[in-house]
Amino acid sequence: MTYSPDVPEVVVQRLPQYLRALSNLQRGGQEVISSQQLGALLQATPAQIRKDLSYFGRFGKQGRGYNIRHLLERLRYILGLERTWNVAVVGVGRLGRAIISYQGFQPEGFRVVCAFDSDPRLIGQLAGGLMIHDISNIGEVLRGEQVQIAIVSVPGAEAQLVIDQLVEAGIQAILSYAPIAAHVPEGVHLRSVDPVLELQSMTYYLSTPD
Amino acid sequence: MTYSPDVPEVVVQRLPQYLRALSNLQRGGQEVISSQQLGALLQATPAQIRKDLSYFGRFGKQGRGYNIRHLLERLRYILGLERTWNVAVVGVGRLGRAIISYQGFQPEGFRVVCAFDSDPRLIGQLAGGLMIHDISNIGEVLRGEQVQIAIVSVPGAEAQLVIDQLVEAGIQAILSYAPIAAHVPEGVHLRSVDPVLELQSMTYYLSTPD
Repeated sequence: MTYSPDVPEVVVQRLPQYLRALSNLQRGGQEVISSQQLGALLQATPAQIRKDLSYFGRFGKQGRGYNIRHLLERLRYILGLERTWNVAVVGVGRLGRAIISYQGFQPEGFRVVCAFDSDPRLIGQLAGGLMIHDISNIGEVLRGEQVQIAIVSVPGAEAQLVIDQLVEAGIQAILSYAPIAAHVPEGVHLRSVDPVLELQSMTYYLSTPD
Repeated sequence: MTYSPDVPEVVVQRLPQYLRALSNLQRGGQEVISSQQLGALLQATPAQIRKDLSYFGRFGKQGRGYNIRHLLERLRYILGLERTWNVAVVGVGRLGRAIISYQGFQPEGFRVVCAFDSDPRLIGQLAGGLMIHDISNIGEVLRGEQVQIAIVSVPGAEAQLVIDQLVEAGIQAILSYAPIAAHVPEGVHLRSVDPVLELQSMTYYLSTPD
């Protein structure tokens, strides 16, 4: 496989952005792109683009740019996106339902296959066509559904407990929408979606004269 | 004001994380923290923490750590969070409704004051207690409601057009949930929330043996 412990995490986090931008270009019919153009799309320097990609081999020819189709294939392979990943959603409130119904996961190879909640009024009901399971059965259901990734959409106060349960059930990739800095053991990957942090990083600029 | 064009954007983007971690410590009764402890909480080196904060003045005393209350006050001031910001939500589908109902904005000083959609069946209805306005009146309504920040929760195909309308209406801070790399002119700040990119940055690690 292509994994190397030497690749900085920030580089790995940029690869999906490269993939997104190149897919859009391919849909528009473009076949080749320079590191200058790609950098302009992604607000990075051409040198940064070349350095990031160099971790994974030689992609472009000097002065000829990158072949978009080839680079996309390689990026999908590197990121493990040539297969489908099964995803569980934990917490079926308003946000959880929006996540379950989100149309953007399936085309990218992420299939939400099961949902969990702790509210007895929700357990056994359907959300977006999925049965809502009792969270106390989470380990068993995740194994049965062959889930590799979990999305956490419970309130902040419950999030760390849920994340601990997911880790115990063997989940190694967790996307959390809870507004807390949660902890996971080494080897488990946690990403957060937190709109408040994003807003706060913009008010810095708003609060000052241009 | 405290704005300095010399502060790198990545530093500004880390400040809300410092604020979040320090607020949690303060709620727990802690009064002082070392850069080592803060670094451990935020997965950064102590040197990185000290360097980030040094852009904004002298906060800690050598060997004594940071006074949490003082540092929180300064961070809130630097980030412009001593006031309330009015927010508009554009796109009142399932995701937009989840955003409007989200309980995490108000305590942090962000107040969702109006909502927009282009669907005639939604215009004039209520969502989370807010009137849904016709997007074709967006400039007028945003001025009337004194909105400074917009959240975009429309489908990807409509997002760039909506963002252009927001920019034209004078909005300088936009948080987009649309899965596209949108463009904004200089001086306008755009952040994206995109769960697919987050998931794809974790499958890299899942797809490889540990």
